[in-house]
Amino acid sequence: MTTTRRTRSDSARQVADLLRRQVLTEETLPCEEELTAEFAATRNTVREALALLRDDGLITRQPGVGTVVVGHKYPHGLNRLAGLAEVLREQGAVTNEVRTAGPVPAPAVVARRLGLPERSEVIYLERLRRVDGVPFSLDLTYLPLDVGTPLLDCDLAGRDVFALIEETSGQRLGYADIDVEALNADAETAAVLDVPAGAALLRWERLTHFASGRPVDLEYIRLRGDRLTMRARLDRS
Amino acid sequence: MTTTRRTRSDSARQVADLLRRQVLTEETLPCEEELTAEFAATRNTVREALALLRDDGLITRQPGVGTVVVGHKYPHGLNRLAGLAEVLREQGAVTNEVRTAGPVPAPAVVARRLGLPERSEVIYLERLRRVDGVPFSLDLTYLPLDVGTPLLDCDLAGRDVFALIEETSGQRLGYADIDVEALNADAETAAVLDVPAGAALLRWERLTHFASGRPVDLEYIRLRGDRLTMRARLDRS
Repeated sequence: MTTTRRTRSDSARQVADLLRRQVLTEETLPCEEELTAEFAATRNTVREALALLRDDGLITRQPGVGTVVVGHKYPHGLNRLAGLAEVLREQGAVTNEVRTAGPVPAPAVVARRLGLPERSEVIYLERLRRVDGVPFSLDLTYLPLDVGTPLLDCDLAGRDVFALIEETSGQRLGYADIDVEALNADAETAAVLDVPAGAALLRWERLTHFASGRPVDLEYIRLRGDRLTMRARLDRS
Repeated sequence: MTTTRRTRSDSARQVADLLRRQVLTEETLPCEEELTAEFAATRNTVREALALLRDDGLITRQPGVGTVVVGHKYPHGLNRLAGLAEVLREQGAVTNEVRTAGPVPAPAVVARRLGLPERSEVIYLERLRRVDGVPFSLDLTYLPLDVGTPLLDCDLAGRDVFALIEETSGQRLGYADIDVEALNADAETAAVLDVPAGAALLRWERLTHFASGRPVDLEYIRLRGDRLTMRARLDRS
């Protein structure tokens, strides 16, 4: 065994990684004695691993009860393009607080990515999305006028934009190019999403196209890191 | 236009989102006057947007020079399974500091996911991976003995585990199931990755299979959020 500078924190991180999936599928965790045996770890290492999961907001420890799972993450598949309500159909009710909806002059980058002439008008939507009443994501959306204008008369509070686009345009969406990053929540975004300032967020930049290839929906989405796991299957060839 | 509770911070976030891609492809940003015109925003909004990008470590502002891009993110495709050195072939030199390498008893979850009998031995690798000398990710890897043992005699510091597995086993890797999350760096992990405590990280949990379907490589990977953008194309159907 080659080992350099291995500390209790290194072992605790290792144990926390192995426990994390269990946390997301169980309601309680085994007691410290069982975890110590399971991971062939010292009691201090197990305690430090549990502290890491607690700091991530996944568990609490209650005297007389043990370790209770409090975090709840929703899985979001990355292999298929789908709206949030569609993805979470069986897991929670999605509601959207529409913070802004209407025409704006397109900044150059928006016009370029949507394939529109410079200084076109576009429809801008800003929505705070909740799952079962708890903030989940803040979505900033730019749509060409012909695609976006009909949406202003639709149920933006209750429906996915993807579904509304397909219904009002009569065209199918085809594919999206997505960039995913992790970043710390600035104070104002943290307040909107109801997380502590600095909390880890996922940020998506997603350009969605009609099946014809025309780009029709440019979105900038911040999602709470403590509420989402993205899932994908990657092929080697 | 429907608008509720719109603040300067809301506008600043909107501008920062539009500037962020530009930051990743340019060396400097236009001056405040140009940005103010481009985004039809007030000077205070533009300043707040630039402050958001500065807080994310992407830019610095230098008197007499303007806004200079300092962050550098590597794109990592999510549509194809590949090792890090393979992905970054043209963008940077990947080196691995091997922190641990050797046999350990498999915890139950590891044995189960790798399809091994309970209490089997597995090979455990822990590597700090750098790109051009700067920490990029901390990888914890579990391999079945027959797959992992030959790797202990290989160049783990200079090569991807994926490439080494394929070379030593004579079998092709087929696919991987991956979970992606964002989380805040705990103090110890932050020190290893050379980021501030609490910095946003991406965490991957990835189970890679041979083309035959046999699971052979279980990895828990923490990646610096400020150095990575994941890219994917999602299809609607």
